[in-house]
Amino acid sequence: MPLMKPHEIDSLATLRLRVREFAEARAWEHYHTPKNLVMALSVEAAELLEPFQWLTAEQSHQLSAEQHEAVRQEIADVLIYLTRLADLLGIDLLDAAADKLAINARKYPVDKAHGNALKYLCPPGYSDFSND
Amino acid sequence: MPLMKPHEIDSLATLRLRVREFAEARAWEHYHTPKNLVMALSVEAAELLEPFQWLTAEQSHQLSAEQHEAVRQEIADVLIYLTRLADLLGIDLLDAAADKLAINARKYPVDKAHGNALKYLCPPGYSDFSND
Amino acid sequence: MPLMKPHEIDSLATLRLRVREFAEARAWEHYHTPKNLVMALSVEAAELLEPFQWLTAEQSHQLSAEQHEAVRQEIADVLIYLTRLADLLGIDLLDAAADKLAINARKYPVDKAHGNALKYLCPPGYSDFSND
Amino acid sequence: MPLMKPHEIDSLATLRLRVREFAEARAWEHYHTPKNLVMALSVEAAELLEPFQWLTAEQSHQLSAEQHEAVRQEIADVLIYLTRLADLLGIDLLDAAADKLAINARKYPVDKAHGNALKYLCPPGYSDFSND
Repeated sequence: MPLMKPHEIDSLATLRLRVREFAEARAWEHYHTPKNLVMALSVEAAELLEPFQWLTAEQSHQLSAEQHEAVRQEIADVLIYLTRLADLLGIDLLDAAADKLAINARKYPVDKAHGNALKYLCPPGYSDFSND
Repeated sequence: MPLMKPHEIDSLATLRLRVREFAEARAWEHYHTPKNLVMALSVEAAELLEPFQWLTAEQSHQLSAEQHEAVRQEIADVLIYLTRLADLLGIDLLDAAADKLAINARKYPVDKAHGNALKYLCPPGYSDFSND
Repeated sequence: MPLMKPHEIDSLATLRLRVREFAEARAWEHYHTPKNLVMALSVEAAELLEPFQWLTAEQSHQLSAEQHEAVRQEIADVLIYLTRLADLLGIDLLDAAADKLAINARKYPVDKAHGNALKYLCPPGYSDFSND
Repeated sequence: MPLMKPHEIDSLATLRLRVREFAEARAWEHYHTPKNLVMALSVEAAELLEPFQWLTAEQSHQLSAEQHEAVRQEIADVLIYLTRLADLLGIDLLDAAADKLAINARKYPVDKAHGNALKYLCPPGYSDFSND
């Protein structure tokens, strides 16, 4: 097994530490209130929307190499801020995701939610994979 | 070491599989175009903004138990959609984050970025921890 | 000319006054910092995204009466917050829009921007009607 | 009274026409599905968040001239897309805002909503000026 490359990150726990070190090395902690971090995360989520806004659904499956790399960087930005926010709030990302998937499974049982049954379950105009 | 609880998720790789299974069991794949997924992710990021919008920075550090649980669920929603999007686009979340942190380290070297040096580095009005 | 209905609003100037009165009557001014208002506006913009996230482009043109009313209310929310924010920052909405359209006209001259020329003008992966 | 400057816009009705002409002159109508427009609007709302994300509430009231101009342009972008979206959906912006303020007045009666009574009215963790 090759040595881990200098900047390789092998788990969310490692990512949490690296993001924490990054901010602390630059004395950026005072910027990183939960309020500011949720704003920054929304900004990055919107930067992820932007490459897709004029694409059709089909085109959105066929990004060019340049588009794909731009999207990859925005996905990374979202994960970095999510990790930092979760760290400050003492939230374990995988535990939270596991619990939410369990909630979603009860809200959208397979037999009721199959196919386009989203419309059956949700108020008209609203259908959401994971919404409470 | 205790047995893993039925819905426990121990890594991003496991999360990716669970989210994929969740969608496939319900035949929701046709909803999950990258275009739709980035929209859903932005919706969840904004649901994460909402509890904080009228709070002060200090209040944002002192969420009640109910606020904290609500935020924990929205953080989970963002991670679930991010995982699904990355899965469809063939993007490894930790590799992408590692590469982006390396880019950020070059853009914001510790000696230049320390303290409030964000204002020194960025165009007036814009300062961002991870933006290109 | 019919009498104006009690809550009718005939111009952006009237809307600005009504929104200001609404906030002041409830002593909500301390919540309405520009920072908080841009957050609230983003939350509403995402609530406008939500009804569309699983719809196809075609379906997005054919909203049901219920969907249309929900979208109409979210559009109103965005305008209300935009008006309040502009009021606090001393920005005239129509002047700002006029100036921005003039900038856009120079950035996207008709001869160059016609049809799918957006891709020609913008960096790969990014095309935007109004972005700087 | 001075002649209207060539690009001056005196009402939302005029803005609606100008935005429609701008898009039609460039044959951009096929990009302007409601689905795409709500995405573009969310992108612009997030560009409005960005200048504020690391500012304190106090700093957010004291933008530099450069910051103020950047914010003014983003506010314009949001209004332009909102106008285009409303035009396509046959929604009158001022009527929609008037109706929504009436709904809000019933939801947040002055006697109950005064001061910090937002916390009294809304579920813990959520307080919103205009949300249903």
